[in-house]
Amino acid sequence: MPADARAATPAGTITTPRGFRAAGVAAGLKTSGRPDVALVVNDGPQHVAAAVLTSNRVHAAPVAWTRQAVKDGVARAVVLNSGGANACTGPEGFADTHATAEHVAAALTAAGVGADDGVGAGDVLVCSTGLIGVRLPMPALLSGVDAATAALSATGGDAAAHAIMTTDTVAKQTLQEGDGWSVGGMAKGAGMLAPGLATMLCVLTTDAAIDAATADAVLRAATAVTFDRVDSDGCMSTNDTVVLMASGASGVTPTPEELTEAVTAACADLARQLVADAEGASHDIAVTVRGATTEDAALAVARAVSRSNLFKAAIFGNDPNWGRVLSAVGTVPEDVAPFDPLTLDVTINGVQVCRAGGVGEPRELVDLASAREVAVDVDLHAGDAQVTLWTNDLTHDYVHENSAYSS
Amino acid sequence: MPADARAATPAGTITTPRGFRAAGVAAGLKTSGRPDVALVVNDGPQHVAAAVLTSNRVHAAPVAWTRQAVKDGVARAVVLNSGGANACTGPEGFADTHATAEHVAAALTAAGVGADDGVGAGDVLVCSTGLIGVRLPMPALLSGVDAATAALSATGGDAAAHAIMTTDTVAKQTLQEGDGWSVGGMAKGAGMLAPGLATMLCVLTTDAAIDAATADAVLRAATAVTFDRVDSDGCMSTNDTVVLMASGASGVTPTPEELTEAVTAACADLARQLVADAEGASHDIAVTVRGATTEDAALAVARAVSRSNLFKAAIFGNDPNWGRVLSAVGTVPEDVAPFDPLTLDVTINGVQVCRAGGVGEPRELVDLASAREVAVDVDLHAGDAQVTLWTNDLTHDYVHENSAYSS
Repeated sequence: MPADARAATPAGTITTPRGFRAAGVAAGLKTSGRPDVALVVNDGPQHVAAAVLTSNRVHAAPVAWTRQAVKDGVARAVVLNSGGANACTGPEGFADTHATAEHVAAALTAAGVGADDGVGAGDVLVCSTGLIGVRLPMPALLSGVDAATAALSATGGDAAAHAIMTTDTVAKQTLQEGDGWSVGGMAKGAGMLAPGLATMLCVLTTDAAIDAATADAVLRAATAVTFDRVDSDGCMSTNDTVVLMASGASGVTPTPEELTEAVTAACADLARQLVADAEGASHDIAVTVRGATTEDAALAVARAVSRSNLFKAAIFGNDPNWGRVLSAVGTVPEDVAPFDPLTLDVTINGVQVCRAGGVGEPRELVDLASAREVAVDVDLHAGDAQVTLWTNDLTHDYVHENSAYSS
Repeated sequence: MPADARAATPAGTITTPRGFRAAGVAAGLKTSGRPDVALVVNDGPQHVAAAVLTSNRVHAAPVAWTRQAVKDGVARAVVLNSGGANACTGPEGFADTHATAEHVAAALTAAGVGADDGVGAGDVLVCSTGLIGVRLPMPALLSGVDAATAALSATGGDAAAHAIMTTDTVAKQTLQEGDGWSVGGMAKGAGMLAPGLATMLCVLTTDAAIDAATADAVLRAATAVTFDRVDSDGCMSTNDTVVLMASGASGVTPTPEELTEAVTAACADLARQLVADAEGASHDIAVTVRGATTEDAALAVARAVSRSNLFKAAIFGNDPNWGRVLSAVGTVPEDVAPFDPLTLDVTINGVQVCRAGGVGEPRELVDLASAREVAVDVDLHAGDAQVTLWTNDLTHDYVHENSAYSS
């Protein structure tokens, strides 16, 4: 993903692609009074949808719901709330999610969505984020759904992106333009960023005319090389959801390659924004492992480095501590990633501090203090495969935010 | 391991078992001027030795040396230095280790150890700890060996235990007494504590009369359920070494069961002391996973919880955040640890905060602020196997020490 992809003013939102309306409202789920309910509606003519969900076996009620609801490849709307994850809330929590979907369906039907047939609950995907183990305040949430339905607009994407924020300091949005069609996206997530996704919610929209199988394949391909290559703090969430909705409103059907490229670019842009806004981080670290026998081998090594607290704390201290990189690399079993420890090279921000498993250029030549981005490059000299994984440093602020904030 | 095992005045040292002399001297490897070279000599009549070494593929020169030197089950001495890990130092680093062993052998021979035959370098085990990627100051180290040889005494165990400290705030020692024989031990280690051992060095001595095969089997059995069940920060070191030396000086041969019990108790005592002195920690956390199908399954779940930075930061904040426990438990694949997420129970310090995967007793009932020890109990309700893994919380001081101290 591009290194310069941090969002300032977004080029577009999830309502830039034609056929979508959205809204974001404050329903009182957050004690701060900030917006906490978002609604995204696909006005068609097509209502294609796909979703990639957390692989955590302990998953939230809305994840279980969305997994079922998206199975037919069709969805009319996504409702998202911050201020409560609805995870580990038992059968009652699942009933709350079900009731939310029913309420959205009824509200949209009353508002004329779906014309004569209306909208069924099974066409409403649900996402929640916030505290685990606490029931949602349903009256407030359902009132919020009504308000969001009333506020739906073709310029509501930005409001929706703000309503899904938790510890995020900025809203994350993206727009990728094709020839006569486009992909818009929004995401939230600042902690628990890890493989199999994170406490992150992401909604992508496109006005391309595609079928459900294509949407699913494209979304899986895109997330595998973007969100799955972010490992901010090694923690996998109970609620991660990435939804792609296609309206077909452009009347254009791009090739699968074109669509994959655009969706991947959208995911990469959002993933990079998540890393840039990770809780308490002072550095964004791109761990590149090259010279691996396979991409999986490279990923395993990159993951080991990205999860080393000692390495991450060193980077926070602006210490190009290649010994901690090497000791993390060495924990990967040989059957997972074959390499000879005596040939390992490590380059940090362009300085080859470790050569052939031993001392290279003086570490003093590495300047970490003056840039947020750090590039750590490990060459295994065992093959041709290469992977880049994004992580963050381990800081006082990370500890502070995660010892003070319950989630 | 016992919960109350923190060391105050040790009941004994590595020189309490008969047949051993030790010394600890300041050779100038540490800029602080504190003791940094330790020497332990087995005066026999037997010279049985076994070692368990880091499984990190990137291992230090002394680890490579010791692995070879102990293969015959015989060792006369162990030399240990703090102030430098001699890891990632290439062929020159291995030559330094070799030269150290040769120097120790010559010094001991000159001092009359080994009688007419003297001591060979292959009978000298070497351990190093400190900065990775830096050559050892050999003249200072070899002078230290001479000084330590001159200072060898049958009451030198305490001095040796102090000479191997790095960021340790206290020396770790233990004594387990059998019927006419005993096991003494010393260890160092405060960070990088993880499975496959850690930046930890440990020397165990016994005057029991045993053979090399027994020593090896007993040591492996003991470390598997003690040091390997400590995972302070998930980071595996390049230098971990646990050595057991048996002099036979008691003339007593305990049963393998008796010896295993004593060596395990010694390792458990030292492991508990390591956790209690872990860098920057404010809580020692015993993660018990019960109701697992197998011990390996229980261990995988306990390891996932112990490595969750979000969980560890919550404990630092005295927040009994069971949602973070559950989200860590849920990351363990079903083929590794079968369980039904909807039956999970979590009890923290005696309060069942999570029942059947959902909300249990109020978390306000859990008092974490007033005790260093935290007991987290996860019941998988899938079988009868149980494991306890010790870890620490993630604190500001951990980040501070590991961003300021290069190792």
